Formats: sequence, C-alpha cells, structure tokens
Amino acid sequence: MSGESTVSSLGEVEVLRAIAERMPPPPPGETWGGDDTAIFPCPGPHLLFTIDMLVEGLDFDLAYCSGEDVGWKAMAANVSDIASMGGRASRAVTSLSLPPGTEMGLVSGLCDGLVAAATEWEVGLSGGDLSGGDQVTLSVALLGLLDGPGVHRSGAREGEAICVTGSLGGAAAGLRILRDDSLATVNAADRGRLVTRQRRPRARLKEGDALRRAGVTAMIDVSDGLAIDLSHLCDASRLGCSVDAATLPIDPALDGLDRNESLELAVIGGEDYELLFTIESDRIEDARRLLAPTGTPITTIGTIGGADRTLGDRALDEWRTLGWEHLREP
Amino acid sequence: MSGESTVSSLGEVEVLRAIAERMPPPPPGETWGGDDTAIFPCPGPHLLFTIDMLVEGLDFDLAYCSGEDVGWKAMAANVSDIASMGGRASRAVTSLSLPPGTEMGLVSGLCDGLVAAATEWEVGLSGGDLSGGDQVTLSVALLGLLDGPGVHRSGAREGEAICVTGSLGGAAAGLRILRDDSLATVNAADRGRLVTRQRRPRARLKEGDALRRAGVTAMIDVSDGLAIDLSHLCDASRLGCSVDAATLPIDPALDGLDRNESLELAVIGGEDYELLFTIESDRIEDARRLLAPTGTPITTIGTIGGADRTLGDRALDEWRTLGWEHLREP
Repeated sequence: MSGESTVSSLGEVEVLRAIAERMPPPPPGETWGGDDTAIFPCPGPHLLFTIDMLVEGLDFDLAYCSGEDVGWKAMAANVSDIASMGGRASRAVTSLSLPPGTEMGLVSGLCDGLVAAATEWEVGLSGGDLSGGDQVTLSVALLGLLDGPGVHRSGAREGEAICVTGSLGGAAAGLRILRDDSLATVNAADRGRLVTRQRRPRARLKEGDALRRAGVTAMIDVSDGLAIDLSHLCDASRLGCSVDAATLPIDPALDGLDRNESLELAVIGGEDYELLFTIESDRIEDARRLLAPTGTPITTIGTIGGADRTLGDRALDEWRTLGWEHLREP
Repeated sequence: MSGESTVSSLGEVEVLRAIAERMPPPPPGETWGGDDTAIFPCPGPHLLFTIDMLVEGLDFDLAYCSGEDVGWKAMAANVSDIASMGGRASRAVTSLSLPPGTEMGLVSGLCDGLVAAATEWEVGLSGGDLSGGDQVTLSVALLGLLDGPGVHRSGAREGEAICVTGSLGGAAAGLRILRDDSLATVNAADRGRLVTRQRRPRARLKEGDALRRAGVTAMIDVSDGLAIDLSHLCDASRLGCSVDAATLPIDPALDGLDRNESLELAVIGGEDYELLFTIESDRIEDARRLLAPTGTPITTIGTIGGADRTLGDRALDEWRTLGWEHLREP
C-alpha cells in the first residue's frame, strides 16, 4: 500500500527512528541525538553561527529537485556563509517540517543529502526537530570556528581590487534549464553540468580559509547574485565600486548566448556560491598561490572606491531592481 | 492603505530593516547581524546546541495567539531544552518564513516576543534568515553552555525517586480555554493564569542549573506531556518506572474538574515546560534547598525500577496512545 510509506501513516516516532538510522554517530564524548540538546567541546576560541531556511515552492521545487538535492543545498548554503567569513564548519542542527502526504522516500533523500554534504565539509549533524506543515521546510543552523580573525563584509578599502572565485551564472542557467528546458543553444554535456551546479552547489570552504590567510579585507558569498551581494559588501564598507563587465568570469557554457542574457545570468542570477572579496592588488598573486591546491581560479573584476557603484554601463542599484527578492510581490 | 503594511508590499530588504531595528545590539567585539554569520567568543568548554520549529496551524494558531506569544514560545521551548541539560543559554539564530499577506504588525510582534524571551533568559539574538511560505514558520537554534557535566536522559538508576518541578496540566487547560472556551467550571482569575501559561511558557532555566548542582541523575523537560517525556527518560535509561497518580502536582485551578479530565490534562497535555528528573531519595532535600531561591517547588511522583512502566492504573504506553504526536493521521 502506498499509504504505508507516507509520514502521516507512520507518525513522528517512526519517522524520527527512520531518520536517526540514516545519521552518522557522534565521536566519543559527544551527544548528538536522543537527548534534549547536543553536547560537544567548544571547537575554537571564536565561533561563527548562522542559519538558513529552504521552503518548498519558493527556494526549491520538488518537480525538478530530489530530496537529496534539497538536503545537500540546505547544508551547502550554510557552509558557504561560514566560508565567506574565512572559517571552518563544525556542527549543525536541522529543523524539518513535512506535509502529511510526504513519502518516506523523500525523507530518506533529504537525510542522505544532508549527510553527504555534512561529510563533504566535515560537519557533525548534531541534532534536530521534526514538525508538520503544508510545505516541506528545512532549516539548518551551523556552527563554525575561526582559526584567526574573521573576514567581515565591512573591511574593504579605497583602491583595492574586487575579485571573485570560479565562475558566475552557471547556477541560474541550470535553474532555467530545469524549469522550462530553455537555453537550447547550450550543448548537452554543458547542460548537465549547469543543472548539477544548480542542484548541488559547492561551498568554497577551503577557498575561504585560504583567502583569509592571504589577507583579503572583505568577503561575502554570491548567493543572492553579484549585484546584490556586492552592494552588501559596499554598504558595509561604506564605499563605491566600479566593475568591468567584460572581465566577469561568466560560465563558458553560456558563451553561445546573447551577451545581455549571459550577463544577466551572471550578475543577478545568484546561487553560484562563489566568494566575492576585496584585496590589495599586490597581494592577488599570494592569494592565487594559497588557492592553488583547491584548483579554484580567481578573477579580478573591478576596483573599490569612487562615489558611484557601477557594473558595466549600469548602476548596481539598477541591476538590483532586476534581481529577485524574497517576499516582494511580482 | 492596508496593503502597505504587508510583507509583500515592502519586500525582503525593508522587512529585514524593520526587524533589525527591533533587535538589541551585540556586546563589543561580537558580530550579530549584517554579516554572513555571527561571531562571538566561545562561551564555555562544552556547548549545548538545539533547535525547535513552530509552524502556524500546527504548533500555534494566530486566531488565539499573538505574534509576541509565538516569538516568546519559540525561544522558551529552546531555553527549556537547555534547562533540562542543566545548562545556561547563550546565543540564538532564527529563521522565519512569512506568507505574502502577513501584516507587518505580526512581524513586529514576533520580534518583540523573541526579544522579550531572549532578555528574560539572557540569550543573544545573534542572527537570522528570512524567507516566504504559505504558513508562518519560526525556527530558533540555540547555543548553551555547561558549567559542569550535563544531565542526560540516560542517567536514571534503579530505586531513585522521580520528581517534577512546579505543576502539570495548566498549559493544556489554557489551550482548551483558548480553543473552545471550555472548562467553564474554572473561575475567571484562574482561566487568565492558565491562558498565560499556554501563551507565555516559562522555561525552568535557573531550576535546571540548580538541579544539576544538586546531583540529579537524569532530566528532561515536559514538553510533549508527562507520559511521553517520562517514556523517553526510561527508554534512555533502559529502566521501568512506577508513578503514583495521586501524587501528581496537578494545577490547583483544575481541582473542580472531573478527576479523569484533570489527570489527562496533566499526563498527556504537555507544554508545561516543567523539569522531570530522577534523584537519590536522600538528596531531595538538598535539591529543595538549592531550588529555594527560584521559589519553584519539587514533587516526588514515583520511583525508577521494576519491569513495567506504570502511571496510576495504566501503563505508560497506554497513556501515550492518548497523547498527541506530530505528523500522525487522526
């Protein structure tokens, strides 16, 4: 009977048991599940603490994402926040709400995705909470630690270079392919890679740590899109910026698209989870050397300073109005 | 225009600004909002870490709870988990999803309730995340610290006394009054107190710390109801129990009810957020003395041990089937 495999036919106790079976155990001396809270030794002199929530229909769509994808992404988005402070990831707790008709296969998938990402970035899944709801909602709260001073958004200085890791626009292109099978000019192999980039984003955790050691002055992850995230960095640093659109490391799979289309994907698409940072120009080569073991490239895309904030021939605020904002009516 | 006061008319940036204005600032040297993650010094050698999610329509109903109530309760439920380990509360992050039509008055209320509870229990509201959704959903993840070894659910030993702080049944009675104006035999002053108990639960944080120092061996908070939470404690300790129903500290406002009705409210009602613990009988007086400054009473309700788990003339499992479980179909 298909009814036997939904969460409402099993009830909270059985669903929790099934989830617990999929979760790795804690190291000796720590408590992760099965008590009121987790217990573990404090991982460092300074802690990082962040939370991120994914809501079905808004942040993901189960029509083209699997449970594994959603679990992975919820963890990756949090790890990316830790990365952008130059930190290391430590322990997570998760809260999950499930509609009554949710099939247990989806629950297993969510768990597997969380575990896979936790394993990838060495996060201990130390506890959680389960509830009902009309939509699948997954919150991950993540604790990180700092091996040195953290990298804030506010540290950029006049004249410094603005740089970004990896490439931009790939995740947004992947979303378009998943949603309506668009971007027909992109070849099959690249389409697969773009879709993976959307479904299974990579947090630049080792890169963030290396960039902190390289002396970057401000850093943020590109989750809401380059225009919005660069604005956040400039707001916090109270400075202007000038970005040369021609230098943007747009994903090469988008080369065949109209230039305006590929630029929009790269600037307002978001979800690339690359690191955007500022650094003194003469330290960029140091940063490249420290990043070499990760294989991740760095591109200089502009300069901090000046009265305005521009990206190509547009103001950053103009780009922002094209971007996506939670809650806002269309 | 009423449309101006909803979250969708304002958009994420403005809603976040309104929320930030209501949040207390961090102490010097800490980062709470406005960056990718919070940063603060590690508060202790050992950390406690927990998360709890409240979903509209399931965990609360805005027909008879205000935003302040929901914000308060989300924090109190987490603090109660820290209390039941014998810990102290430290820093929280919250994730909030809001339907498009949510009025800003509700958002302000949620913030005010979170801030009031955070102030009450000395929690730093260090960060958060905002999303959309069909329901109001509020997750709070809370970090605590331990001044000594924590109190697990698993530490109970044969022959020890089972005790509970305060009184039972009041929160469930308050819920009935709010839902359908029932319990007509309860007088007006008591009705008001019961309703407050449901809307604004008190976490027994100082009590948990005192009980840890008094040498309690196992502890859990009564959130799902005495029957379920005592079962969790017995499961973790792999022992039976015998509870004398006549000794239960049922809220005196329920004295005029049918005995079966008041007993059900106390045993399966839940949400009292009292502490249920086990202790050697000859240490109970020590515990009372340490708890005296809080004004909270302790009642001995039974004994750990034996093959069975009974509460009055029923098995604990039989009580449990009467209780409420997330996800389960009615």
